[in-house]
Amino acid sequence: MVSALGVAVVGFGWMGRVHTQAYARVPHHFPQLAVRPELVTVVEDVPGRAEEAAERFGFATTARDWREVAADPRVHAVSITAPNFLHREIGVAMAEAGKHIWIEKPVGLTAADARAVADAVARAGVQGTVGFNYRNAPAVAHARELIAAGEIGTVTHVRVRLFSDYAAHPESALTWRYERERGGSGVLGDLASHGVDLARFLLGEITALTADTAIFVPERARPTGATAGHTRATGGDLGPVENEDYVGCLLRFASGARGVLEASRVAVGEQNTYGFEVHGTKGAVLWDFRRMGELGVSRGTAYQDQSVSTVFVGPGHGAYAAFQPGSANAMGYDDLKVIEAHHFLRSIAEGTPHGATLDDAVHSATALDAMSRSAESGAWVTL
Amino acid sequence: MVSALGVAVVGFGWMGRVHTQAYARVPHHFPQLAVRPELVTVVEDVPGRAEEAAERFGFATTARDWREVAADPRVHAVSITAPNFLHREIGVAMAEAGKHIWIEKPVGLTAADARAVADAVARAGVQGTVGFNYRNAPAVAHARELIAAGEIGTVTHVRVRLFSDYAAHPESALTWRYERERGGSGVLGDLASHGVDLARFLLGEITALTADTAIFVPERARPTGATAGHTRATGGDLGPVENEDYVGCLLRFASGARGVLEASRVAVGEQNTYGFEVHGTKGAVLWDFRRMGELGVSRGTAYQDQSVSTVFVGPGHGAYAAFQPGSANAMGYDDLKVIEAHHFLRSIAEGTPHGATLDDAVHSATALDAMSRSAESGAWVTL
Amino acid sequence: MVSALGVAVVGFGWMGRVHTQAYARVPHHFPQLAVRPELVTVVEDVPGRAEEAAERFGFATTARDWREVAADPRVHAVSITAPNFLHREIGVAMAEAGKHIWIEKPVGLTAADARAVADAVARAGVQGTVGFNYRNAPAVAHARELIAAGEIGTVTHVRVRLFSDYAAHPESALTWRYERERGGSGVLGDLASHGVDLARFLLGEITALTADTAIFVPERARPTGATAGHTRATGGDLGPVENEDYVGCLLRFASGARGVLEASRVAVGEQNTYGFEVHGTKGAVLWDFRRMGELGVSRGTAYQDQSVSTVFVGPGHGAYAAFQPGSANAMGYDDLKVIEAHHFLRSIAEGTPHGATLDDAVHSATALDAMSRSAESGAWVTL
Amino acid sequence: MVSALGVAVVGFGWMGRVHTQAYARVPHHFPQLAVRPELVTVVEDVPGRAEEAAERFGFATTARDWREVAADPRVHAVSITAPNFLHREIGVAMAEAGKHIWIEKPVGLTAADARAVADAVARAGVQGTVGFNYRNAPAVAHARELIAAGEIGTVTHVRVRLFSDYAAHPESALTWRYERERGGSGVLGDLASHGVDLARFLLGEITALTADTAIFVPERARPTGATAGHTRATGGDLGPVENEDYVGCLLRFASGARGVLEASRVAVGEQNTYGFEVHGTKGAVLWDFRRMGELGVSRGTAYQDQSVSTVFVGPGHGAYAAFQPGSANAMGYDDLKVIEAHHFLRSIAEGTPHGATLDDAVHSATALDAMSRSAESGAWVTL
Repeated sequence: MVSALGVAVVGFGWMGRVHTQAYARVPHHFPQLAVRPELVTVVEDVPGRAEEAAERFGFATTARDWREVAADPRVHAVSITAPNFLHREIGVAMAEAGKHIWIEKPVGLTAADARAVADAVARAGVQGTVGFNYRNAPAVAHARELIAAGEIGTVTHVRVRLFSDYAAHPESALTWRYERERGGSGVLGDLASHGVDLARFLLGEITALTADTAIFVPERARPTGATAGHTRATGGDLGPVENEDYVGCLLRFASGARGVLEASRVAVGEQNTYGFEVHGTKGAVLWDFRRMGELGVSRGTAYQDQSVSTVFVGPGHGAYAAFQPGSANAMGYDDLKVIEAHHFLRSIAEGTPHGATLDDAVHSATALDAMSRSAESGAWVTL
Repeated sequence: MVSALGVAVVGFGWMGRVHTQAYARVPHHFPQLAVRPELVTVVEDVPGRAEEAAERFGFATTARDWREVAADPRVHAVSITAPNFLHREIGVAMAEAGKHIWIEKPVGLTAADARAVADAVARAGVQGTVGFNYRNAPAVAHARELIAAGEIGTVTHVRVRLFSDYAAHPESALTWRYERERGGSGVLGDLASHGVDLARFLLGEITALTADTAIFVPERARPTGATAGHTRATGGDLGPVENEDYVGCLLRFASGARGVLEASRVAVGEQNTYGFEVHGTKGAVLWDFRRMGELGVSRGTAYQDQSVSTVFVGPGHGAYAAFQPGSANAMGYDDLKVIEAHHFLRSIAEGTPHGATLDDAVHSATALDAMSRSAESGAWVTL
Repeated sequence: MVSALGVAVVGFGWMGRVHTQAYARVPHHFPQLAVRPELVTVVEDVPGRAEEAAERFGFATTARDWREVAADPRVHAVSITAPNFLHREIGVAMAEAGKHIWIEKPVGLTAADARAVADAVARAGVQGTVGFNYRNAPAVAHARELIAAGEIGTVTHVRVRLFSDYAAHPESALTWRYERERGGSGVLGDLASHGVDLARFLLGEITALTADTAIFVPERARPTGATAGHTRATGGDLGPVENEDYVGCLLRFASGARGVLEASRVAVGEQNTYGFEVHGTKGAVLWDFRRMGELGVSRGTAYQDQSVSTVFVGPGHGAYAAFQPGSANAMGYDDLKVIEAHHFLRSIAEGTPHGATLDDAVHSATALDAMSRSAESGAWVTL
Repeated sequence: MVSALGVAVVGFGWMGRVHTQAYARVPHHFPQLAVRPELVTVVEDVPGRAEEAAERFGFATTARDWREVAADPRVHAVSITAPNFLHREIGVAMAEAGKHIWIEKPVGLTAADARAVADAVARAGVQGTVGFNYRNAPAVAHARELIAAGEIGTVTHVRVRLFSDYAAHPESALTWRYERERGGSGVLGDLASHGVDLARFLLGEITALTADTAIFVPERARPTGATAGHTRATGGDLGPVENEDYVGCLLRFASGARGVLEASRVAVGEQNTYGFEVHGTKGAVLWDFRRMGELGVSRGTAYQDQSVSTVFVGPGHGAYAAFQPGSANAMGYDDLKVIEAHHFLRSIAEGTPHGATLDDAVHSATALDAMSRSAESGAWVTL
C-alpha cells in the first residue's frame, strides 16, 4: 500500500523548482515506492512567487515564513532550498519539529553549521538527505561499482575538477554571494563541496589535504537600484570580493590513494566542467558532467597500452532503468534530482538512509574548512 | 485563464509512458500555456498495464479498446502511441471523432497511410502533431536558426545518419517488426523517418533521391513460447527477415543542396548515433544526439582554416530556457517530448499548428516510399 | 649487401619535396632494406627550384626536361610528382625506358590514362607504386588487419569521407585545376580517389555505384598578372568552374557490403577531414586522418551496447615500429611517405610489388569514371 | 654561405637515434640555416650499435668512449643522449672541451647536476640546448603566442598533466631506473620535468610550490639472466622501488597565477597523456600531446558561455610552415626534434641562444628538487 506523505518546499528559486518537479515525478519513475509525496505548501518571500509555484505545481497552500511549515502537521518532509546562510537555522528547526529534511549542499556556511543540522537530525530520529546530486548520475554510480568490484585494481590517484564560468564576467554584480558573512566561502561551498563528495563517494575517506585559494577578480561593482536583481552591474562603486574564486588542493585518502581537486567559478570557456578521473593499478574511469551519459572505462589485463572505451550508460547502470529502456537515451539534470527525491522518500518509507546524508555533508564541509585553513597556513591539515 | 483539456493515451508501451509524463510535466515548464491537460483515460490491452499506468500517473479511467476513447466526450486530445500498423485506423477515427491527435512517427506503414490520417485531420479541422522529437532538441533548433540567418552561408550539403544497434544481435527474435505486412518497412520507418524530418527541418524540401537498401541479418529465430515477450530467441525455427536493416540514400533539395542519408538498425558499436552535419559556403553545424546538448559550429569570415567551436546549449537556444537557467545543464530525452507536448497543446489552444505536423509526416513518408522504390529500380525518384 | 639505386624526382612542388625527404629517410627507418636510394637528379622547370632542391637534399644534378631522366643511365627509379595532366606521358615514357616508377595519384586525368601507364609498366616489367598514402597510416593498416581477421564479423557497410576546405574560399583564383581539359575532374581525382582506394583496401572490390556531383562555387575570378602564382584573385573576370566541388556516392562491394563515399573541396570547417567508419556484424573500426594515430575499435561478443575503444597506435600496428618505440608517439604525414618509399624500393629490391600499385590506380580511376558517368545518367554503373 | 659543422652523438639508444635523424633532416626543413651538420662520430658501448648507427645514418666514425669525442677536433657540437646519471660528467667535460652541447632533459639527477653543466657551458662560452621538446609543438608555440598577446586575458590558473603507463606493468623489471643512486628521481625527472618546462614556457617563473609524491608499485622483480634486456621480469627476487611513481603539486607563479601539476608513470589507460589547460580572465588554451596538432582555444568578449574552438595547427603556428604547406597535416614526434636541432644549430650559427637552454634546465631541476623536499616536509617551498 502506498501512503501519502505531505511535503513542503522552503525557498522557491531554481533549486526549489527542481525539488518540486522531482516530487511530482517520483511516482512516474519509481512506482514501487511505498510513499507518494503530496505537495502541501511552498514558502517564498519574493512576492507572488509562492503563488506562481502553487499554480504551476499544485501546492495546496503557500506561506511566507518557513516557521509556518515547522508548525504544520500536514507536512512530514521538507525541502530546504533557501540560501545557504539559512540552512542551519531552518534545518535544525525542521528536524526538531520532527520533519524529515532534504537539504541542499553545502548545508550552511561552515562545518559547524553542517554538524549542527546533522546533530539535530540524529537527535530527532528523522531522515536527512543532502543534494549531492552528481552521485546520482548513472555513469557515476557505474564508476563506483567498477571501482568497488576491483575492476580498476587498487585506486592510486584521482583528479576531481569543477570549473564553471558563472562568475567569470567582471561585471557580475557584487551580491551577498561574494561576502564572507552571508555567502560564507566562495567556490569552496558552491562547487568544491560537490568535488569532495564525489571523491569520497568513489574513493572513501580523505585523511589529509593541503590547499591553495585565490581571488582572481578582486573587486566588483555593487549593484545599484537599476541593477538590482540583475546579474550585471557597471555603474556602482567597486567593492571587494571576500571569498575565493579558485581552489587547488592535494588530497590523501585512507586507502593510500592520492588526489588533486580543483574548482573555479571564473573559468572562461568552461560551462559545468565537472568531473573526475580515477586511476587504479589495473585501469581507470573518467567522467565529465557535460557528457553526463558517458563513462570512459579502461579495464582489462594489459596494464600497458590498455585503451579507454566510451561507455554510454544504459539500464544496467545506477537508476537509469527507471528512466529509459535502452542505452544512450539522454537523461537530464532534473532527472538526477528525481533520483535524489527517491532516495529521500525511500529513506523515510524504510526508516533507513539511502543516498547522500547529513553525515556526508559534515564530511564535505569538514574538508572545505580544512582547505580554508590550509590555504592560510600553508600546511597539510589532517581530517 | 487556463482551461482544462481532457487527454487520452492509446497504447502504453514505452512511448505511451513518455507521452504521459510529458502531459504531466508541461505545466511545470510552460506555465504560460492556456490549456492544462487532464489525464482522462489510458488504453492498453496488455492485462494490467492500463491500471498500472493509471496508478502511476493518475489517469481517471482505463480502457481496453481505443474506440471507447473516440466516443468519450471527456477526451479532447489523444496520443496515438499504438503500434505503427494501427496508426491509420486509429488516427482517422480519432480525427473524425473530432479529437486532436498527437501521433507517433512514421504515421502508419506507408505514405498512403500518413496521407489518410493527414486528410482526416484536415477535414475535421483538428490539430495533428507528429512525434519527430529530435527537432525539439535545443541544439537542433539553434542549428536551424543559424542556417536560416545565413550564418553558414548557402547550404551546400548535408550528412544525416541514424545508426543503432537495437537489432544487431543475431538472436533478436523474429517478431512482427521484421514482417512486411505488420511491420511495414524496417529501418526506413523506424529511423530514416527521423532523418528525413531533420533534413527537411534544416534544409527545406527534398526534390529527388536515389537509395540502396540491404538486409544484413537475413534470418532470425521465431520466438517460441519460452521466448515470448523476450528479445532473444535461439531455439525456434529460422524465418526470413522481410524488411531492410540498412538504407543509404543520396538526396537533392529544392535549394540545390545535396545530401547523404544513412540508417542502420544493426550497427554494432552505435547506440543512438543520430545526427547531422550541414555544410554551407561560410560554415557548418554538426550535431550528434549522443551529445544532445552540444552543437559544433563553424562560422566566421575565414572560409579556409575556419575552426569548429563546441557550443553547449543554453537559455538562448530553442526551448532550453523552459528547463534550465544556465547553459550546459543536461536535458534528457523525456524533456524533448515535454516540448513536443507543449507544441501539441499550444496548437490546440491557439488553433494554429506548432511543431511537426501531419504534413511533415506525409513528406517524410513520401520520401521513405521513394527510397523503397529507388532501391528496387536503381533510379532516382522525383518527389 | 645493400646496393645503391639511382633515383630521380620529376616535379619539385610540395609532393616532389615529400618524395625526396622520403628517399633520404628510408635508410633511417628501414635499415634492412637491400637497396639504398641515391638522389641522382631532380627535374623542375620553375627557374631555380631544381637547384634549390639539389642544395637542400643533395641531388647530384638537376634538369629542366623529364626526357633527360628517361635517357639517363644513372637513374633506375623515378618519382613522378608533376601535375596530373602529365602523368600519362611521363609515366609511359619512364616505364618504356625501363625505369621503375613511383607515381602520384590519381595517375592521369582518366581511367584510360591510368590504364595506359599500368600497361606500360606491365610490358616493361618494372615496378610501379602509387601514392595512395593513407593506406600507410598504422591505424589504417591495423584496421585492415582487424577486418581481415574477422574481428568485426562480416563487413556490412562503410562510410568514407574526404572533406577539405582547400577550395572553399570564393576568391580562390580560377587556375587550370578548375578546367576540364588540364585539370580533369575536380574533387574526384583530388580526394575521392583516396577514398576509393581506402574502401578497396579495407573491403575489397567495388562492383557497382551510383553518384551525384555538384559545383557549389560556379564562377571564380581569373588570375591576373597581379595574382599570378597567388591563391586569391578578386580583380579578374569571372570564369566558369568546370569540374565538381562535391561528390556523393553509394557503393556496392563484391562481398555484399554497402557503402557511402563523399568528398568535398569546399567544406568550410574541415581541414583534412579524411576518414572511414567500417561496420560489421560484430563490431566496427573508425578512423579520421586528423587524429591519424587513433583508431576507434568496437569488438567483442556483445552485439548490443558494445562500446568503442580509442586505440592509440603502437609498435604492433603497420609500420609504426620503424618510427617509434612506444605507442601514442605521433607520426607525421611525411612519415607515411617514408613508408611508401619503402614499399617502392622494396618492390624493386625483391622484384615483387608491395604497397599500392598501378592496378590499384586503375581500379580507383575506373570507379571515378563511373561516378562521373553515373552523375550524368542518374543510373547505377557496374564496374 | 653554409658552413659545415661536425657533430657527434653520445649514446645511441632511442633518443640518440632521434637526435641523429634530426641532424640529417634539418637541412630539408630549414634551408636558410647557416650551418650544415656533418655526422662525425657516434659513441655507444653496446657492441655493434655504433657501427649499426654509422651504417644507417652515415657517421664517419664510431667510438666506445665519449672522451674520444671531447678530444676530437672534428667535432664542434655534441648530442648528449646517454643515461641521466652520466649527464653531468659528460656535459661538463664537453663544454670544457669547447663543444656546444645539445643535452637531454632533465640534465643529471639533481638541480646541482644541472647547475654544474650550466656553469660549465657559461664558462666555456658555448651554446647549450636542452631537450624540452614539447615546447616545439606548433600548437604549444601558438598557445604561448596567444597568451603573450593577451588573447586569454590575465592568466589565472594552469593544469599540467603528464600521465604515462610505461611503468604500469607490475612485472616491469627492477632496473637501475628505480634506484635513487643511479636513477635519481622517478617520474619527477622523467615526466614532471617536461611539465615544469611547459608551465614556465607558457606562464613564466614559478615562485613556490607544495607537492606530494607516492610509490604505488613498491616492489618489483629483479631482472635475472633470462630477463636481462627485457622489460618484464617475474622470476627474480622482489626488490624495493626507491623513487616516486607519482607526483601531485600546487604551484604559484610570479604573475600571481596558480597551478596544478601532476605526473604518473603508472597510469593505466594513459599513453603519453601530456598536456595543459591554461585559463585566463578572458579565455583558455587547452592542449594534449596525444592530439598534438590541435589546440583548444576559447577567446572573445563573452566571458560567460564562451565556447572552445578546436584549432588545427597550420603554417601560421610555430615552425609548422617548415614542414607542411597546409593546416591539419600531421607532424610527428621526430619532427619536434628537428625543430629542436634547428634551435641548437641556429644558436651556434648566431652565437645567441634559441629554444630551451641550460638555464631552463636549471629552473626545471630546481622545481623538481623543491617538489621532493616539499613532499618530505609537507611545507610550501619557495623557489
